[in-house]
Amino acid sequence: MNIAVELTTAPKAKPDQENLGFGNYFTDHMFIMDYTEGKGWHDPRIVPYQPLVLDPATMVFHYGQEMFEGLKAYKTADGNVQMFRPEKNIQRTNVTNERICIPSVDEADALQAIVKLIQVDKDWVPDAPGTSLYVRPFIIATDPFLGVRPSFTYKFIVILSPVGAYYKEGLNPTKIYVETEFVRAVPGGIGYAKTGANYVASLKSQMKAKEKGYSQVLWLDGLERKYVEEVGTSNVFFKIKGEVVTPSLQGSILPGVTRDSVIQLLQSWGIPVMERRITIDEVFEAAQNGDLEEAFATGTAAVISPIGEFNWEERIASINGGKIGELSRKVYDTISGIQRGTIEDAFGWTVKVE
Amino acid sequence: MNIAVELTTAPKAKPDQENLGFGNYFTDHMFIMDYTEGKGWHDPRIVPYQPLVLDPATMVFHYGQEMFEGLKAYKTADGNVQMFRPEKNIQRTNVTNERICIPSVDEADALQAIVKLIQVDKDWVPDAPGTSLYVRPFIIATDPFLGVRPSFTYKFIVILSPVGAYYKEGLNPTKIYVETEFVRAVPGGIGYAKTGANYVASLKSQMKAKEKGYSQVLWLDGLERKYVEEVGTSNVFFKIKGEVVTPSLQGSILPGVTRDSVIQLLQSWGIPVMERRITIDEVFEAAQNGDLEEAFATGTAAVISPIGEFNWEERIASINGGKIGELSRKVYDTISGIQRGTIEDAFGWTVKVE
Repeated sequence: MNIAVELTTAPKAKPDQENLGFGNYFTDHMFIMDYTEGKGWHDPRIVPYQPLVLDPATMVFHYGQEMFEGLKAYKTADGNVQMFRPEKNIQRTNVTNERICIPSVDEADALQAIVKLIQVDKDWVPDAPGTSLYVRPFIIATDPFLGVRPSFTYKFIVILSPVGAYYKEGLNPTKIYVETEFVRAVPGGIGYAKTGANYVASLKSQMKAKEKGYSQVLWLDGLERKYVEEVGTSNVFFKIKGEVVTPSLQGSILPGVTRDSVIQLLQSWGIPVMERRITIDEVFEAAQNGDLEEAFATGTAAVISPIGEFNWEERIASINGGKIGELSRKVYDTISGIQRGTIEDAFGWTVKVE
Repeated sequence: MNIAVELTTAPKAKPDQENLGFGNYFTDHMFIMDYTEGKGWHDPRIVPYQPLVLDPATMVFHYGQEMFEGLKAYKTADGNVQMFRPEKNIQRTNVTNERICIPSVDEADALQAIVKLIQVDKDWVPDAPGTSLYVRPFIIATDPFLGVRPSFTYKFIVILSPVGAYYKEGLNPTKIYVETEFVRAVPGGIGYAKTGANYVASLKSQMKAKEKGYSQVLWLDGLERKYVEEVGTSNVFFKIKGEVVTPSLQGSILPGVTRDSVIQLLQSWGIPVMERRITIDEVFEAAQNGDLEEAFATGTAAVISPIGEFNWEERIASINGGKIGELSRKVYDTISGIQRGTIEDAFGWTVKVE
C-alpha cells in the first residue's frame, strides 16, 4: 500500500508528560483511508491532524455503524518504539466488521498504516515512567443517507494519543459493583464486537456504580443473570484455591488481547488457568470460604486492575484484605515489562516500529 | 427560547417530487443547539444546511452516544402544513436520553425548534400525492475525548428531508423472515431507546433476510427466542379471529408512535386489541388453522406495511392469500387521511405548523 504523506506546517506543542491523562491529547498527524462500494479501500494517506467535515445526515450519527480498536506503543530504554500484539487488534477489527456489515480491511495494510503513522509522529511517543502512545484505529459509516442499511462508504482513521501512567500511586485494588438491573450483551447480539453500541449501553450502569462509590460494574450474563461476563470494559480473572478462572467467550464477551496474553503467561508458568463459565454465586461462596485469593480485570489501558471488593446486592466480598495479590502483581510486572522492553519477550508479542 | 436565524444566500434547487425516495435530499436549513455541562442547552439557531466539523476523537464516533427521532410533516389540501403527534417523539427523546446518559431537552423548546425550522423551509414540504417532509431530530456526544464516560458536551440538531410516497405501486404485502440466530434486544438492555446501537445490531440480520428474498426480519425475544418483538424497525400487529394482538412493551421493544395510534384507532372502532406477549408458535398455529386473518407492521415511514408471508426456519405462514387485509387497509387509509388532513382528526393528533 502506497501511503501519501502530507506533513503539518504547524506542529503543536507537546503536552506535559506528567499530566497526560488518557485520551486528552492527540499528535500532529492522522491516517485516513476511504472505502467506496465497488472500489474498495482507497486513498490511504497521512495528513495533519484535523477535524472531520461530515454532512449532518452521515449515517454514523444516526445508526451507530462504527467500530474501534485500542492498542499501545511504548518507548524502550534504547530509544526505540515497540507495539504490543497489534496483529490481534487488526484481526479483531475484521471480526467486528463482519458482525456490523463494515467491509473488511487488509490486515497488512492496517498494520502498515499504524506503523507509518507512529513513525511520522515518533517524537510524540512519551518516555516518562508508565507513559505510552495509545493508538486508536476506528471506522465510521459515511453515507449521507437516512435509510437503515449498511453504508456504501466508510472512513478508516487512525489517531494517536500520548497517555499517562495508569497507576500514579501504585496498583490500588478497585471496588466493583455487581450490576443486576442492566444488561450489556446477550448471545446472538454484538457483545463480542468492538463497536460503540456496547459502550453506550454501559454508560448508565457505570454512572450508577460511581454514585454508589464503586469504580466499575461487574456484568452478569443477559439470559440467566448469574454468570460473570466482564468488569466495566475489561475481562476478569479470579484466583480460587491456586487455580485461575476467567469466563469463557460465549459471544457476549469481548475477546481481549490482554486476556489472551494473561492466559498464555499463566500457562507458561504452569499455573492452572481455566476458561469456563463461573457464576457470581461461586465467586461469593469462594470469597466467604477464604478460597478467593485474588481477582483482577485486564485491558489495554491498565494491563491489570486488581479488585479488592465486590458488592452484589449489598453483600460484600472482600479479596485479599483489599491489597493486590502476589500473582496479580507478577502478571502486571511481566506484561508491562515485556511491553516496555525491560523483560525479554519470549512470546513474540512485541513489534518494533523501526 | 430565542432562536437565531441565519438564512442561506445560496438556496438549493428542489428535487423532482416524483423521485424523492427516502432520506436522500435535505432542505436549505438546519437547527442546532449546543449543550455544555454546567451551562445547559444553549445557542439555539437555524443556519444554512452545512457539514458538521468535528475532531476525529469526538465521542460519538467511538462510543455510540447518539439518539434520534423521526416524524413527518404533511402539506394539506388547503396549502397548510401539519405534523403528526410531534409531542410523542419529543417525549420519547427524553426517554432515550435518560437511558443513554444524554441530558434531557426541554419539550417545549424542542417542539419550537422543529416548528420554526419547518416554517423557514416551508417551501420544501412536497405536495405530490404520498410525499411528506421527514423531520430528523438527533443528538450526538461531542467531547473530543477517548475515555469511556458520558460526554460533557452535545449537539441537538434537526434536519429535514422531503420524502417520496412509500407505496408507489399500492400497499403490497411484504415477506418477512423470522430471525432465530441473531438478537436485537433483551430486558435490561437498550431496546426501547431510539439510539444507533439498536440499528447497527440489526444490519446483519437485515442483509441475511434480503439475500434470502425477504424484505425484513421478525425479531424474537432475546431470552427465550419464542416471543414476537418487532419486524425490522417497526412494531407488529396480528389479527387473529377478529381480535388484534400486538406485543406488549417489555423494555426491549420500541414504543412506536404509529403503534400507539393504531391501538387508539382500533379501540375507537370497537375492535378488541390486546397488548400481550405472543409466541411465534401461536402465530404459525393461527396461520395453519386459518385464524390469522391479517398481519402488518407499523412505523413512521410507511404507516402500515401489510405482511403476506412469514418464513420461520423454512416453515411458511401465508396470510390472507398474500393480499392486504381489509382492516390493514382501513387503518392505513384512516391514519394517512388524518395525517394529510383529508379525514377529520378526532384524536387531536395533528399539530399545525402555522
